[in-house]
Amino acid sequence: MTQVTISRLSQLFVRTLRDNPADAEVASHKLLVRAGYIRRTAPGIYTWLPLGLKVLGKVENVVREEMNAIGAQEVHFPALLPREPYEATNRWDEYGDNLFRLKDRRGADMLLAPTHEEMFTLLVKDLYSSYKDLPVYLYQIQTKYRDEARPRAGLLRGREFVMKDSYSFTMDDEGLEEAYFAHRKAYQKIFERLGLEIVIVKAQSGAMGGSRSEEFLHPTPIGEDTFVRTEGGYAANVEAVTTVVPEPVDASNTPAATFEATPDSPTIETLVSQSNALHPRSDREWTAADTLKNVILAVIAPDGERHLVAIGVPGDREVDLGRVEVNVGALLGIGGEVEVEAANDEDFKKFPQLVKGYIGPGSSLDNKILGKESATGIPFFLDPRLVEGSAWITGANEFEKHAYNMVVGRDFEGDGVIEACEVREGDPAPDGSGPLIAARGIEMGHIFQLGRKYAEALELKVLDNNGKLQTVTMGSYGVGVTRALAAIAEKNHDEKGLIWPRNIAPYDVHIVATGKGNEVLDGAAELAEKLSAAGLDVLFDDRPKVSPGVKFGDAELLGVPTSVVVGRGFADGKIEIKDRASGEAREISLENAVEEILAEVR
Amino acid sequence: MTQVTISRLSQLFVRTLRDNPADAEVASHKLLVRAGYIRRTAPGIYTWLPLGLKVLGKVENVVREEMNAIGAQEVHFPALLPREPYEATNRWDEYGDNLFRLKDRRGADMLLAPTHEEMFTLLVKDLYSSYKDLPVYLYQIQTKYRDEARPRAGLLRGREFVMKDSYSFTMDDEGLEEAYFAHRKAYQKIFERLGLEIVIVKAQSGAMGGSRSEEFLHPTPIGEDTFVRTEGGYAANVEAVTTVVPEPVDASNTPAATFEATPDSPTIETLVSQSNALHPRSDREWTAADTLKNVILAVIAPDGERHLVAIGVPGDREVDLGRVEVNVGALLGIGGEVEVEAANDEDFKKFPQLVKGYIGPGSSLDNKILGKESATGIPFFLDPRLVEGSAWITGANEFEKHAYNMVVGRDFEGDGVIEACEVREGDPAPDGSGPLIAARGIEMGHIFQLGRKYAEALELKVLDNNGKLQTVTMGSYGVGVTRALAAIAEKNHDEKGLIWPRNIAPYDVHIVATGKGNEVLDGAAELAEKLSAAGLDVLFDDRPKVSPGVKFGDAELLGVPTSVVVGRGFADGKIEIKDRASGEAREISLENAVEEILAEVR
Repeated sequence: MTQVTISRLSQLFVRTLRDNPADAEVASHKLLVRAGYIRRTAPGIYTWLPLGLKVLGKVENVVREEMNAIGAQEVHFPALLPREPYEATNRWDEYGDNLFRLKDRRGADMLLAPTHEEMFTLLVKDLYSSYKDLPVYLYQIQTKYRDEARPRAGLLRGREFVMKDSYSFTMDDEGLEEAYFAHRKAYQKIFERLGLEIVIVKAQSGAMGGSRSEEFLHPTPIGEDTFVRTEGGYAANVEAVTTVVPEPVDASNTPAATFEATPDSPTIETLVSQSNALHPRSDREWTAADTLKNVILAVIAPDGERHLVAIGVPGDREVDLGRVEVNVGALLGIGGEVEVEAANDEDFKKFPQLVKGYIGPGSSLDNKILGKESATGIPFFLDPRLVEGSAWITGANEFEKHAYNMVVGRDFEGDGVIEACEVREGDPAPDGSGPLIAARGIEMGHIFQLGRKYAEALELKVLDNNGKLQTVTMGSYGVGVTRALAAIAEKNHDEKGLIWPRNIAPYDVHIVATGKGNEVLDGAAELAEKLSAAGLDVLFDDRPKVSPGVKFGDAELLGVPTSVVVGRGFADGKIEIKDRASGEAREISLENAVEEILAEVR
Repeated sequence: MTQVTISRLSQLFVRTLRDNPADAEVASHKLLVRAGYIRRTAPGIYTWLPLGLKVLGKVENVVREEMNAIGAQEVHFPALLPREPYEATNRWDEYGDNLFRLKDRRGADMLLAPTHEEMFTLLVKDLYSSYKDLPVYLYQIQTKYRDEARPRAGLLRGREFVMKDSYSFTMDDEGLEEAYFAHRKAYQKIFERLGLEIVIVKAQSGAMGGSRSEEFLHPTPIGEDTFVRTEGGYAANVEAVTTVVPEPVDASNTPAATFEATPDSPTIETLVSQSNALHPRSDREWTAADTLKNVILAVIAPDGERHLVAIGVPGDREVDLGRVEVNVGALLGIGGEVEVEAANDEDFKKFPQLVKGYIGPGSSLDNKILGKESATGIPFFLDPRLVEGSAWITGANEFEKHAYNMVVGRDFEGDGVIEACEVREGDPAPDGSGPLIAARGIEMGHIFQLGRKYAEALELKVLDNNGKLQTVTMGSYGVGVTRALAAIAEKNHDEKGLIWPRNIAPYDVHIVATGKGNEVLDGAAELAEKLSAAGLDVLFDDRPKVSPGVKFGDAELLGVPTSVVVGRGFADGKIEIKDRASGEAREISLENAVEEILAEVR
């Protein structure tokens, strides 16, 4: 983008606002709107005003430079695409409501692309045919569309946004590994240059498919993603944490299961204390962790179909629907992103065997109500803590009745194991690096080892060095460009406004002319010219009838890192230079102002 | 965009093709695909490969620089927009099938913007409130969508394309005039820098509304637009040509109208000769220009409704449906773009008074079949040549019968005057600058004086210097950026490939290493480094196993203006420098190669 070297505030298309926009929850959203960088056009859809567009261009260029540095080549795909390629990989359906779909005048189905795996695969198929052509890394910085259910936080979760997406095409897993780590390193550099701390966490691949995947999370209290880390260096998305599984238990001495009346014990707590009083365990006291809570959930597939599942977890833990959403699809053989919610009354009506509040794998009459070969046929997935031989107190599918000493593998079996429980601070990390610490973050980037999923679906094969056709191995890598900008704003602000890092700021220096008389204004204009000639991008507040107070306030709101006040001291050859971040100001002489300012700014 | 200073062809993501794409009709389309600049993704939708993206960036920058030079400020709007603003101006409906419409997950109507008048109007309304804020010129270089009925000629008429659109906001017509001419001059500079000859023609505003409007046409035989010019400097879109109207005729001596049998005269020609034989005129012979041909047309409004109209034109002229389409909407009070087609049998069934082949304003029984207060009620619009008092031979709505001496204003009247006739070479220009010459062109830009249409519809008012609210005056201005690129390719090519102008070329110089041995390759690589260090963008054909013939062919196809061959003479310190346009080659010494090449390239 060509730089405009001096912008005069009297003419710049910007209006600062005193009040926060009504729909803004987070500081970056409030300030970017108030300072005139962006305007809301529709939910999750924003317009870039001149200041915002300048900053966006700078963020894009950081990303572009680091992608070019690893030899990735820039291309540009359309946003409006035909249905067929996305049909071939099932993503037309799997994306569910998140996909903007439309028809053209001839009735052909089209979509606004949320990401371009299919198109890049087809493009490489179209152009390349030999192992000699690989590896190739391609990327684009392009406008993406996702019809988010809850667009929020301004640019942080929008429906139209700029993303850098890249794709690697290699002959084998080794090549993929190399491409993956090249991108991983490039991303570390990008976020370092953008001044955004990043934690790289293990992630589930979700709708993208593929094997290994990591997220680049920027830790911030306003983040939507919860992740966990340890002091020993482990970090993972909560969805990707695996439970440290206890050893199997020898159940040979565990008494046979019994069905007991448990009146007036509607909560886990009352159940446990009643159990210890009336049905004591021989070796130790019952605890909440000995109770088995069975939850009936509805899994809504991308095609809208509703599948009921039962999930059994220790009574001292809650089910984490987010973890269930990520993990249950594969167990049910459903592709794409599913939604999970509690089963409703209508769901329960279909299964009179299940008694709410007392749901369990069996009853005194029929011990196969949930689980393998059960009467209900509802798939029953167990938390990994329900190891073979462990004994549980659980519902007996009768009002105010529970089963005792129900042993996994002896008295009931699940249809599979699921990571469904909430992850808690203090839980052990799966890699043994210590107890988990919880944190929140924003997903700034995501890297995927796709493997051959897309190449197989779209038949991307090239000749190997023996002249045989071989399916290409792929990776895909994304950076949220608009989101990065918002995160930078979020991190760099105070109550007065934005505080841009120098390499992202819309201008290098903000000259504020105060005081009356043309001399000051002319002097400020002359300084602006000199600084611009020295290669700086200058914002010049030349507004004639605006008070110094308003000008200073605007300078703080707009957030240019250095401002220069040309005012009262001007007659004596003095001007003031002010650092936005520290608030520190000092007087310098007009004579060597250009050198002083250059030294400050560079 | 950051420049990659050396691209090695062995790694560049490009594949040249020997065969023309099956769907390509024009040279630019064939060559841009064959040379690996673009790939088709869907009808009228293209992907930019690395070479194409570089060229596109250069074209964009020329446009950006000239817009910045007139003080226009760059912003960036979303492509995906809510329906409401376009509803307020009627364009939601008026765009008809050309608009891509969709619904979001909540069922809200949205569109992919074909142009952004509404959004810019609302943005200025949002930010500005006083005459002191004006004038302001805003622009964006942005992806636009139009669901063209017939996308064609590659990038020349696409459905997703890049456009520069700008909008001026001024207090009055004088300000608009200034903004309009600033854009007009900027556009002249842009096309001059792009090396595209331009004829500025008067145009109809069509769906945009507003008063004055001019098109920037690039004359080329493959253009879709027909325009006319004179040697005296007149130029207009065919739709915008106005007829030189003859003087009214004194009809006091014209005989009364008569209805005559005209057997066996099915054509205008036979009718004229029979008329001269059987019903001669006293003063001179009848000619085809004395016959009145009445055509029944169906006008299809954007909402799909079908309106019948009758159009009366001299028998020596054909009706030009394009001219009717542009002009008939206003006469019928239909907003937006209409389609016009010949009436069909079903249309005719509704009006048994009309006898095909013999249609006229009246019959011997009823002289009000078409025109004011007529029985059919079909609006009857007359060509401007049907002046008051002129006498005509026309159909009598009976088989093989015609009416003679039907005088306009005496025997019949139309419901309005329409520019409906074909414009012919040799017709007089309306400004008296001589006979019209026909030509074809591509619309490269369009400038509109919108006036207050959009500002009124969306209530954009600011306080004037008396503190009174005043509606803002607007202009809108567009340049087809992708189309400009295609036009440049179309103009600059030969049978071997593309020939880019230097300021648009993807690289400054294309080094071709031929001959065997690492020395040549190393020498070429060293030269590439030196040229790159000197600031040139270098494409380096380092492909090891490709024959010189193929390399030369690719260099010609890719079209970099200067190529340098490092080959046979290298051992003797000689290389060859070749001009793509002229084909001329000369040997230079390796020693001062950098200076020689710089001199050639700059």
